Amino acid sequence: MMRLELLNTGSELLLGAVLNTHVRYIADQLFPLGLRLERQTTVPDGAAIGSAMRESFGRCDILIVTGGLGPTSDDITRDLAAELLGVSMQQDPEVLQAIDARMSRRGFVMNAAIARQALVPDGAQVLPNTNGTAPGLYFPPRPLDGGGHSPHLFLLPGPPRELYPMFEREVEPRLDALTETTTTTHATYKIVGLGESKVQDLLEHQLLKLGSVEIGYCARPGEVDLRLIAEPALIEQATPMIAHACGDALISDDGRSLGEVLLGELRERNQTLVTAESCTGGRIANAMTDLPGASEVFLGGVVAYANEVKIGQLNVSPELLKAKGAVSAEVAEQMAEGVRLALHADLAISTTGIAGPGGGTELKPAGTVFIGISQKGKNAFAVRKDFPSDRDTFKHLTMQTAFLLALRQLRDE
Amino acid sequence: MMRLELLNTGSELLLGAVLNTHVRYIADQLFPLGLRLERQTTVPDGAAIGSAMRESFGRCDILIVTGGLGPTSDDITRDLAAELLGVSMQQDPEVLQAIDARMSRRGFVMNAAIARQALVPDGAQVLPNTNGTAPGLYFPPRPLDGGGHSPHLFLLPGPPRELYPMFEREVEPRLDALTETTTTTHATYKIVGLGESKVQDLLEHQLLKLGSVEIGYCARPGEVDLRLIAEPALIEQATPMIAHACGDALISDDGRSLGEVLLGELRERNQTLVTAESCTGGRIANAMTDLPGASEVFLGGVVAYANEVKIGQLNVSPELLKAKGAVSAEVAEQMAEGVRLALHADLAISTTGIAGPGGGTELKPAGTVFIGISQKGKNAFAVRKDFPSDRDTFKHLTMQTAFLLALRQLRDE
Repeated sequence: MMRLELLNTGSELLLGAVLNTHVRYIADQLFPLGLRLERQTTVPDGAAIGSAMRESFGRCDILIVTGGLGPTSDDITRDLAAELLGVSMQQDPEVLQAIDARMSRRGFVMNAAIARQALVPDGAQVLPNTNGTAPGLYFPPRPLDGGGHSPHLFLLPGPPRELYPMFEREVEPRLDALTETTTTTHATYKIVGLGESKVQDLLEHQLLKLGSVEIGYCARPGEVDLRLIAEPALIEQATPMIAHACGDALISDDGRSLGEVLLGELRERNQTLVTAESCTGGRIANAMTDLPGASEVFLGGVVAYANEVKIGQLNVSPELLKAKGAVSAEVAEQMAEGVRLALHADLAISTTGIAGPGGGTELKPAGTVFIGISQKGKNAFAVRKDFPSDRDTFKHLTMQTAFLLALRQLRDE
Repeated sequence: MMRLELLNTGSELLLGAVLNTHVRYIADQLFPLGLRLERQTTVPDGAAIGSAMRESFGRCDILIVTGGLGPTSDDITRDLAAELLGVSMQQDPEVLQAIDARMSRRGFVMNAAIARQALVPDGAQVLPNTNGTAPGLYFPPRPLDGGGHSPHLFLLPGPPRELYPMFEREVEPRLDALTETTTTTHATYKIVGLGESKVQDLLEHQLLKLGSVEIGYCARPGEVDLRLIAEPALIEQATPMIAHACGDALISDDGRSLGEVLLGELRERNQTLVTAESCTGGRIANAMTDLPGASEVFLGGVVAYANEVKIGQLNVSPELLKAKGAVSAEVAEQMAEGVRLALHADLAISTTGIAGPGGGTELKPAGTVFIGISQKGKNAFAVRKDFPSDRDTFKHLTMQTAFLLALRQLRDE
């Protein structure tokens, strides 16, 4: 097994300004090649890049470095790599010409700082950059002064729109050639509403009996991803086994999220969805509208935080609000029914609850929530749940449950 | 300057299953304390945690480790730390009791794996976990066998809902005490709508003339945090200087976000807010309802994704939609006015735009958005902006601009 490390460079990654999405992207690309990251490190721009590279040299067979190839004075990854490998750099006329052409198209004039990006260390292969100026570089292993060999070294640009196409076109074929062809494949199963240990209890024993299967779990509030790495024939046997054990808690076997599955089934059935949100405050509508293609099935919704909005926009009865309280099954039902009729939709989801930390009572403590479902031609209903947690988790668990109820309602037709 | 490192443990972080958001969160928390991360490392569960900790011991003054404190067999961070520090572990009766109480409330039975989480290494301080089972641990520096001292060592849980409250309640006060010098203090200024280099041009020269001031910037889409570390008297002089230079782009000098400032000013004026969202799809309502105390001023809103909802719920004219298109200043104005009247509020925000990547035209390319404001007794108006970017950034920038316009409207009265 090749030992592979990722080194991300850039002060902005350590200042909280920018979220590091490279790790997930690169891990996802490596997985089908049968490779995985053994370590990932972030260092600021500057000299720290050199010491981090030197440390990785002693630990891994393949090192991928991102960032620090640009024109400014703190972009020194290329120089540090050449120094570590003990090679000098030459200006590459072809690279210089490509940079010059790109600059002219954009109305910029070449200068010394920009021209630095055309320096290529001896023995390195140039990886063309179709979406930016600085090319990437690949160094095959070479003997090191202190003994041993350097790892396969890739220097890649930091911006995702430059990195991604270069990774797919230039890095993956080289990695593929390095790794012996593997016969295994992988599958990711999304499971909602069962805890990690429950999933393990249900499945691990029988999955291991199938043969050589590597099992991985990734738990988030209210959901578990189950990952299998095995021969394709084994995955084929495992899928129905998992479906049988998990029932409708198995959301997808292709990594799609609950929201995506719901959107897809609504589209298949040509049905429209609307929302009436009190305690989730727009979270559900926001999540739906983050999905590509949402506008085909999601019409909109009402955020009914105040009781007056529940009455005025959703036709909830003031008497009912007084008798049962805003956090009640009856109000959740009227909210769902009200928004479905007002917005002329086929299916409606509603939420009303106590996100906390304040506002709870003995009978309805913080974390209590009622989720309502109304579908054309059927009676509305509501389900009570208790999610005592922070506000963000409360909203998330309420949303997941609402999506699950809506999905069951669609499938029950 | 204290050298600080972060070590994230967890195979799921290196498998692409989970995006590492800890780095950004912790960097954001460190910023006001005048601390920054010098390095961040991710390693899988297991023995790699031990070697990564040992390497960090030699490089830093403070080491924060996340993950690997749970009950399963690969949760060995606690054991590895005790081994490195050469201390043994004892079961802490108080911690065990807290875990037992939590388990009973949830109907689980204590077992040996769960009880392991009550093991406390000698000399460590227990950091209570209010949202989970495993407590955190803090080890003050101690002499190491090979010479030198260990860094201040924090072992913290991996799940954000356990990590965040523990970090704020247990870690920050300890870090604050470590970094506190007798004379300097710090201030964080939130600036919205000016770029980082613009803020630097406007301020850096005059701030440095004040005397010994450490200046830090943290830029995110549409906003910049400016941090000063200096004597209190200097900060007092700097604040009016920054206010003068930035005008109303300066949102707060106490770290409060734009949404929090808007909420506060609405409350002071006893005014209510509602929203009519098309392209932001509930993002603004969701952000408002994430803020404590929102229910005092935020009544709710309408997510009007489909044109029928704009017409039916917000009283937008069908003729106007046909003549000007849904993405137009006139429709944004009618949406704001419509939602304010329908929900009986004092102030309303509306958004209609093309999030992209598809759906743009030559005159209104992807990224075009109109933001409407309607206030009781005043004419509604709308502002056009262009935010060509990914969907998440587009929604975020639209929200920030809407909050800024609403705030100006309130202050202009």
